[in-house]
Amino acid sequence: MDLIWLAVIAGALGLAFAVFLIRYLLSRDQGTDKIREISAAIQEGALAFLGREYRILAIFVIVIAIGLGVLFGVHEDLAHGLRVAFSLVFGALCSAAAGYIGMNIAIRANGRTAAAAQKSLNEGLRVSFRGGAVMGICVVSIGILGLSILYFAFHNDPLFIQIIPAFGFGASGVAIFARVGGGIYTKSADLGADLVGKVEQGIPEDDPRNAGVIADFVGDNVGDVAGMGADLFESYVDSIIATMVLATIAVTAGLMPGAPDEAQQTAWLLPMLIAAGGIVASIIGVFLVRVGEKPEMGALLTALRRGTFAASFLVAIFAFLIVYFMDSDLGIFWAVLSGLIAGVLIGESTNYFTSYEYRPTRAISEASLTGPSTTIISGFANGLLSTLPPVLFVAAAILVAHHFADIYGIAIAGVGMLSTLGVTLATDAYGPVADNAGGIVEMSGLPPEVRERTDALDSLGNTTAATGKGFAIGSAGLTALALMLAYTQIAEIDVAKLSLLDARLIAGLFIGAMLPVIFSALTMTAVSKTASYMIEEIRRQFREIKGIMTGEERPEYARCVDIATKAALKQMIVPGLITVLSPIAIGFILGPLALGGFLIGATAIGFLLAITLANAGGSWDNAKKWIEVGNYGGKGSDAHKAAVIGDTVGDPFKDTSGPSINIMIKLMSIVSLVIAPFLVGSSGLF
Amino acid sequence: MDLIWLAVIAGALGLAFAVFLIRYLLSRDQGTDKIREISAAIQEGALAFLGREYRILAIFVIVIAIGLGVLFGVHEDLAHGLRVAFSLVFGALCSAAAGYIGMNIAIRANGRTAAAAQKSLNEGLRVSFRGGAVMGICVVSIGILGLSILYFAFHNDPLFIQIIPAFGFGASGVAIFARVGGGIYTKSADLGADLVGKVEQGIPEDDPRNAGVIADFVGDNVGDVAGMGADLFESYVDSIIATMVLATIAVTAGLMPGAPDEAQQTAWLLPMLIAAGGIVASIIGVFLVRVGEKPEMGALLTALRRGTFAASFLVAIFAFLIVYFMDSDLGIFWAVLSGLIAGVLIGESTNYFTSYEYRPTRAISEASLTGPSTTIISGFANGLLSTLPPVLFVAAAILVAHHFADIYGIAIAGVGMLSTLGVTLATDAYGPVADNAGGIVEMSGLPPEVRERTDALDSLGNTTAATGKGFAIGSAGLTALALMLAYTQIAEIDVAKLSLLDARLIAGLFIGAMLPVIFSALTMTAVSKTASYMIEEIRRQFREIKGIMTGEERPEYARCVDIATKAALKQMIVPGLITVLSPIAIGFILGPLALGGFLIGATAIGFLLAITLANAGGSWDNAKKWIEVGNYGGKGSDAHKAAVIGDTVGDPFKDTSGPSINIMIKLMSIVSLVIAPFLVGSSGLF
Repeated sequence: MDLIWLAVIAGALGLAFAVFLIRYLLSRDQGTDKIREISAAIQEGALAFLGREYRILAIFVIVIAIGLGVLFGVHEDLAHGLRVAFSLVFGALCSAAAGYIGMNIAIRANGRTAAAAQKSLNEGLRVSFRGGAVMGICVVSIGILGLSILYFAFHNDPLFIQIIPAFGFGASGVAIFARVGGGIYTKSADLGADLVGKVEQGIPEDDPRNAGVIADFVGDNVGDVAGMGADLFESYVDSIIATMVLATIAVTAGLMPGAPDEAQQTAWLLPMLIAAGGIVASIIGVFLVRVGEKPEMGALLTALRRGTFAASFLVAIFAFLIVYFMDSDLGIFWAVLSGLIAGVLIGESTNYFTSYEYRPTRAISEASLTGPSTTIISGFANGLLSTLPPVLFVAAAILVAHHFADIYGIAIAGVGMLSTLGVTLATDAYGPVADNAGGIVEMSGLPPEVRERTDALDSLGNTTAATGKGFAIGSAGLTALALMLAYTQIAEIDVAKLSLLDARLIAGLFIGAMLPVIFSALTMTAVSKTASYMIEEIRRQFREIKGIMTGEERPEYARCVDIATKAALKQMIVPGLITVLSPIAIGFILGPLALGGFLIGATAIGFLLAITLANAGGSWDNAKKWIEVGNYGGKGSDAHKAAVIGDTVGDPFKDTSGPSINIMIKLMSIVSLVIAPFLVGSSGLF
Repeated sequence: MDLIWLAVIAGALGLAFAVFLIRYLLSRDQGTDKIREISAAIQEGALAFLGREYRILAIFVIVIAIGLGVLFGVHEDLAHGLRVAFSLVFGALCSAAAGYIGMNIAIRANGRTAAAAQKSLNEGLRVSFRGGAVMGICVVSIGILGLSILYFAFHNDPLFIQIIPAFGFGASGVAIFARVGGGIYTKSADLGADLVGKVEQGIPEDDPRNAGVIADFVGDNVGDVAGMGADLFESYVDSIIATMVLATIAVTAGLMPGAPDEAQQTAWLLPMLIAAGGIVASIIGVFLVRVGEKPEMGALLTALRRGTFAASFLVAIFAFLIVYFMDSDLGIFWAVLSGLIAGVLIGESTNYFTSYEYRPTRAISEASLTGPSTTIISGFANGLLSTLPPVLFVAAAILVAHHFADIYGIAIAGVGMLSTLGVTLATDAYGPVADNAGGIVEMSGLPPEVRERTDALDSLGNTTAATGKGFAIGSAGLTALALMLAYTQIAEIDVAKLSLLDARLIAGLFIGAMLPVIFSALTMTAVSKTASYMIEEIRRQFREIKGIMTGEERPEYARCVDIATKAALKQMIVPGLITVLSPIAIGFILGPLALGGFLIGATAIGFLLAITLANAGGSWDNAKKWIEVGNYGGKGSDAHKAAVIGDTVGDPFKDTSGPSINIMIKLMSIVSLVIAPFLVGSSGLF
């Protein structure tokens, strides 16, 4: 069918828009020499991290590509093995390219935002938001173009459905390095720099005398920009892939028009076209983000929201038109809509639980009055409680989508949720750019009114980051579920056998549920370990380089960057291997039913744990900020000290372990989907 | 069959042994006037709490009894409704009686332990351990006698299988009040007394000038003795009930000898007889707990372990003999054994993760060197990591038990795990007795060598309490699972329909998984709220009663007890109602399949969350103690301060929220089992 060209056109349009944004950004003023110098140091560190990460990643991808190629080659024939291996490598390359471009622009936008903020808040917002938008638009455009190419190349291959999951696996491989490695890096740099700088030496945050400060800025980019981008690239393509795999269900359920063959093509094309509509909607959404001449905090937030809400609204219209003109069952539209709405609501509920505009976070600030213990307990309880709305929204979306379009509907609800990713990711990647800009302003000694402006931008970024995290988790949960459902199709599991009364399934479910828990423990510990190397190095520099404290000598920033990079990438190996190997072990040892239970257990608990950790961390952070703006004694009070402890605890929760779980549950599901052909008819080793 | 008499005899033997222990204890020296006075205050407070709790409980039980009576009366006939209602009330009475006797003796043993410790450590151990043993033995004896009476009365009733679950429901009702209400009480009293006494006024722990100190002692008894007892009473009878409900499975699977009718009787009797064997083994185990004339810490622990290990070994032999002589399939023995071994191993792994003899807890002490944030992160990560062994042990037990005896095997593995409860609960309930004794010694101003002895006993108690908690969680998880399986039988759910591909089941699973998370948030918040009333009251007394600090006037202990009692019982209403009502809502609105998913989701996540919270809390507690015995700077150092913060955070984790989840998952399962007859053939409201 020629409609696939619509997806290609949307992707190309997106790329053209990205080029437009990049040209706009690069033409902006780079600011004072000092700003350029700092920004250059951040660029150097971030690119060094990405370079090292991609080198290890390349080995990882090649090993897996060879392994899969051989397996599928033996199972079918050599050509099929090569196709699967190609799909994997191609997926990894697409994700890596999106991450590279997006981060590369973000690290150029930070200094330019600092310079723009010297002029006005509005200028600052425009530069930083467009800096983030490049990542958002690149992710969706490259994602859809990559999938379109695969579709062109292989959609007539009878084993097409075995080839596309490998694309997702490749993307997941990048994601686990970017999100887990990046997450460990960013928080250990942050923790190390803070502990030695603020606590031991008593110098302010972002002080240029701190050897860890550049590593900290680099962390924002490699963790929050590149990591988040890779995470959502994975969700984006995985949700489309899962839907395509479930096409047969749509055909059997009579949701598609025409003869079986034609119906299947329609079922394959639908998620791609909805995603394509989402790209157009996102571009329009990005354009709508602008504020008037008298910008205040409320206006800034309204501006960003206008972009995402408008995009959601447009996507809903596009989805209806696509479903209507493709003559498919209207139920599919309702499924898409249910996912879309659930995504927006999850973002809003995250905002409620983590913004200091609302009661929950303020209650944590209040609890800080009685010391750090009550701060920790109330923040953690808030994180736990915040799982209520997202679970209900996702459960409702599942029920509605299934009601209208069977399990194909559940998968396409995920596509609906992620369709506006171009603009939601833009509002999300904007945060670290603004954060970096604030740090650069501080380090460059620019006047306080400039810092005030970047602080306003940063504060807004925190709000959008929280919403973005909620959205990332929600979409990861729905995507992992869709992949699990797709897995049962490829593994040809009998619906009736996948029963909760099967002991292996139950055992698998318990083990699967345990894995995100263990994984979180490992990533938290990894942050502490990596931070300890940083701490040693920063202390060493303060001790050995005498002129640092007087400002006469520059600390060796690059060494800290290097140490954190090596340690973080080393620390991610064990959690990474566990993630890739455990579904394989469960599938081959306990059998495909156990693996089904395993995936649902991991998805359910991973979803809950990720929300808890992200929102507990987010609310501690903002509870501290609420005190800092002058409540409960303000900065320096005992309540503030208690809140700082909460914030520090929350850092690895919200920026390392929580988001890493997203990758983990999707990666385990996609690994299962990829190995599913080998599990057909198997019942494990016993 | 007349073999039921063996269960009755074992129960009677247990009660006789309890009487022997009680007579022994009451004949002990009650100590100095001061000891008597304090002990009397604790007794008064604890009994006041229990009295008030039982009054509310009575209303709760009566309302539910009437409700169930009417429902079953309408569904079948009036007589059946009355039988179900009777079973419920009877279950509640049995549990309440066991809790009342056990706690009543524990609060008399505390002063006597203090007095005995004046003579020797050995005397102190004997009195405190026997004080705890009364609870252990009463729980199992009353449990088995209660079930035997029900069996005698109704085993020829064709609806017997609808009547016995109500007994478990009654027991669960008591448990939720005792464990949740008691848990909130004990930690808020602890927190309140510590925050005002230690932090604000700078007076030592257990200082008689602190108005909250008696409330704190009372808390140990109502939470850790009565609460733990009710929790395990519930697990104990529920595991037997679940096995009985699954008897038809055993018959169909050909595990039982004789004609279907006879085979079913055998399948009903088996769990009762294994439990009976466990009572005899426990009595012998209790006798084996004794130390020589030169008692040290190691010897004390060995003494306790000798008791539990010997009992486990004996139960294994008894189980083999019972299965053999009843001519049942030997596979049932293997199922029992798998549960028994899993229980022991879970206890040991808990010990590894929480005792300061091992690396994990010492690593938390070390992390305290870098402040409270790292203490919290490393302790929490340790709690998360500690879920690995229990999940693997439970999963292995499930697979083995199912392999040998189908899903009847999974249920009877739970019976096996709980069979030695008489002695394991004894070692557990011993802890709070020793803890109270230590406090009494402190308040009575007895010489330091006496305090050293009670400290040794208390420290041992902490170890056994951790092991006991692990055991309680493990058995709760397995019991809840068995109840879920039993539920699917009574609700007559088609195995094939209970498929993971059912959207309602998936939605139910996500919602079920969320509930223990929300529940934990509510119980944690409840502790903070209740503690705030306590804090106000203690502050008021320090302010208004001038002679307190000089020791001229006694604080009004009873007022604090009263305030905490009222607040704690009020705070448990919402979590309690959520627990009872949510399975009913899910079952009737989304249908029986969704409820199946709901239960497995709740059980899996509840199990993991309970272990995480209990072990994180336990390891923070012991990390603090490891510093206090002279490591990393010892008492008063910065590391110690950080560790104290960890300990305070861990208190509601390990003593309120964690253990409460046990009750919650069992209660939701038993509610589902009880309402199952009404769900037959239903598909919810939509």
